[in-house]
Amino acid sequence: MSNDRYTQGWNKLVEVDGEAGQRVIDSLASIAPDLGKYIIEFAFGDIYSRDTLTLQQRELITISSLITQGDCAAQLTVHLNASLNVGITPTEIVETIIHCSPYIGFPRVLNAMNIAKDVFAQRGIEQL
Amino acid sequence: MSNDRYTQGWNKLVEVDGEAGQRVIDSLASIAPDLGKYIIEFAFGDIYSRDTLTLQQRELITISSLITQGDCAAQLTVHLNASLNVGITPTEIVETIIHCSPYIGFPRVLNAMNIAKDVFAQRGIEQL
Amino acid sequence: MSNDRYTQGWNKLVEVDGEAGQRVIDSLASIAPDLGKYIIEFAFGDIYSRDTLTLQQRELITISSLITQGDCAAQLTVHLNASLNVGITPTEIVETIIHCSPYIGFPRVLNAMNIAKDVFAQRGIEQL
Amino acid sequence: MSNDRYTQGWNKLVEVDGEAGQRVIDSLASIAPDLGKYIIEFAFGDIYSRDTLTLQQRELITISSLITQGDCAAQLTVHLNASLNVGITPTEIVETIIHCSPYIGFPRVLNAMNIAKDVFAQRGIEQL
Amino acid sequence: MSNDRYTQGWNKLVEVDGEAGQRVIDSLASIAPDLGKYIIEFAFGDIYSRDTLTLQQRELITISSLITQGDCAAQLTVHLNASLNVGITPTEIVETIIHCSPYIGFPRVLNAMNIAKDVFAQRGIEQL
Amino acid sequence: MSNDRYTQGWNKLVEVDGEAGQRVIDSLASIAPDLGKYIIEFAFGDIYSRDTLTLQQRELITISSLITQGDCAAQLTVHLNASLNVGITPTEIVETIIHCSPYIGFPRVLNAMNIAKDVFAQRGIEQL
Repeated sequence: MSNDRYTQGWNKLVEVDGEAGQRVIDSLASIAPDLGKYIIEFAFGDIYSRDTLTLQQRELITISSLITQGDCAAQLTVHLNASLNVGITPTEIVETIIHCSPYIGFPRVLNAMNIAKDVFAQRGIEQL
Repeated sequence: MSNDRYTQGWNKLVEVDGEAGQRVIDSLASIAPDLGKYIIEFAFGDIYSRDTLTLQQRELITISSLITQGDCAAQLTVHLNASLNVGITPTEIVETIIHCSPYIGFPRVLNAMNIAKDVFAQRGIEQL
Repeated sequence: MSNDRYTQGWNKLVEVDGEAGQRVIDSLASIAPDLGKYIIEFAFGDIYSRDTLTLQQRELITISSLITQGDCAAQLTVHLNASLNVGITPTEIVETIIHCSPYIGFPRVLNAMNIAKDVFAQRGIEQL
Repeated sequence: MSNDRYTQGWNKLVEVDGEAGQRVIDSLASIAPDLGKYIIEFAFGDIYSRDTLTLQQRELITISSLITQGDCAAQLTVHLNASLNVGITPTEIVETIIHCSPYIGFPRVLNAMNIAKDVFAQRGIEQL
Repeated sequence: MSNDRYTQGWNKLVEVDGEAGQRVIDSLASIAPDLGKYIIEFAFGDIYSRDTLTLQQRELITISSLITQGDCAAQLTVHLNASLNVGITPTEIVETIIHCSPYIGFPRVLNAMNIAKDVFAQRGIEQL
Repeated sequence: MSNDRYTQGWNKLVEVDGEAGQRVIDSLASIAPDLGKYIIEFAFGDIYSRDTLTLQQRELITISSLITQGDCAAQLTVHLNASLNVGITPTEIVETIIHCSPYIGFPRVLNAMNIAKDVFAQRGIEQL
């Protein structure tokens, strides 16, 4: 049911993205609350709630996709935080970004590394 | 040394991509052998030979990046095979593609699923 | 309810995409039936079933997005047919593609025009 | 004639984009005035001056293309304003952005919605 | 004048793209002749006819852009031929494609190299 | 040898990118020094050190690729400076950006022109 998808999605969003995810939904309240609802229901209620892959694997996939897509600084900030939330280490995040180099080239990789640097600084992660 | 990077890279390429990877290098011999050399040395000798992430994690990242980038049917075919080679299951591949839906939309996801279907058929994988 | 979303989505898919849309869903049955379900429920049950925009406006938006994205020949074929299904004229389709020229350049526009040419030929549309 | 294309294009630019469009042209005066001339002559004198589609339809197509393309915040700001100038309602703009979700994913859609929020705020549009 | 732009553009198109360019224009005659007109007038009459850069430099820029953009196999085929037409050597074309590797990654580079291989074969260029 | 590639790459980086390139490498020291090493060794030690194309040609290719890719403001700033460093004139840079218009459309071209404007201002280039 739609209600269950929303509840399940919201719990998953809070588990994965934490406050940053809630702020995205809040920011939509005044302009497009339905978009926030779809993100909760479809992205988190349907997709993130599926089996087969762990949340760590799902975040690896997510950040690889965002790094590649480009122009996703805000979303990459949310999901680098999410990656740390679900137990991916800072070193693994850095390694994931480096791994993309032969596939997308250095410009997108450098952009992502700068965002990771900011996220780590905001969380007080100094020593990798 | 460059020599070591080439040898290490070649071994890693064979381990990960198998014959399909060798065919990519062979196809470059008559036009741009140096490009084949860089793929072996940099992509496989430098990057795939690093620690921190498993080959399974590296292939998850690779296929997520290729799915997102678009116009990578040949490379996605190689790396879906590589994913199977390093022990990712067909079900995990399908799940990885599905997971990208909220981030890149259905068109790129459908393209990737069609390629996965072809790869599975070529390898005689019928039942997921 | 999920059930209602599926039924509403299926009816909308049939109305808009016709047999071509059903073939997309059918092609997923053996590999990723859940992906077909999400396309029906989310894309058609949630999004296409909303008010505010007509189906003609929705198809204009869809084809503009697909033309711009690139590497969407299969999806563009489906949605050029869908555009005709909901009453957009061949001349309006051609005009939509031309309109994209200053925003995305001629290569993507030429690719889209070639696909439109094929779609028109398949439907026996000869004279614009 | 070139002269007529320029005049017709300038009038169309002013009609559609208003002051924001003129500022784009002005910003090019010191570095690439010919680029401003081409935008006026080709984009507005040739393309926007064609028949078959209304200006409202043309702006729907334009913003869908810009949302999809990514890294077009400045141009999307101009054309969300242009959309309002030619009579598209704020609710229709929001709906257009939401409609793109299944085709391009939530990241580009969220970026566009944030820009729409800024445009609406700048024009004093508070209640959708 | 519009007439002069067309004539100048047509001559430039024939000079640069040769028969392949004319075939692109011909292919548009039955569906969107105005698009062919804009390509001749704007791309070739306005842009390619400008000073400051040689035709060789213009083709280097063009193929770099097409390689990067992806999903441009048909246009890249035309412009690799055009590059040879204006005096860029096969070795310089191969080098241009290789040069893009650190900026866009190997997948787009491999796609472009395969297209170059076909173009060289079609023109009987065997030994680089 | 790896050592030679690093030294050759560093010298080439300094020659081409100047202080701006060194700042990119420095910015990676605390988070991903290996990424800086790969940029030096692969991009500059391997690729930029090759023959066949001049540094001016290489920078034309590089900026065309970055303009097309989008979301590369930082890298485009570095390489517009690099273009000037290796002897490309401001007028040629402006012309290169204009040349991309028919291939990628005006939005990416306008973004690039704005960045060029900033680079020229920072270097005190006022009169083209």
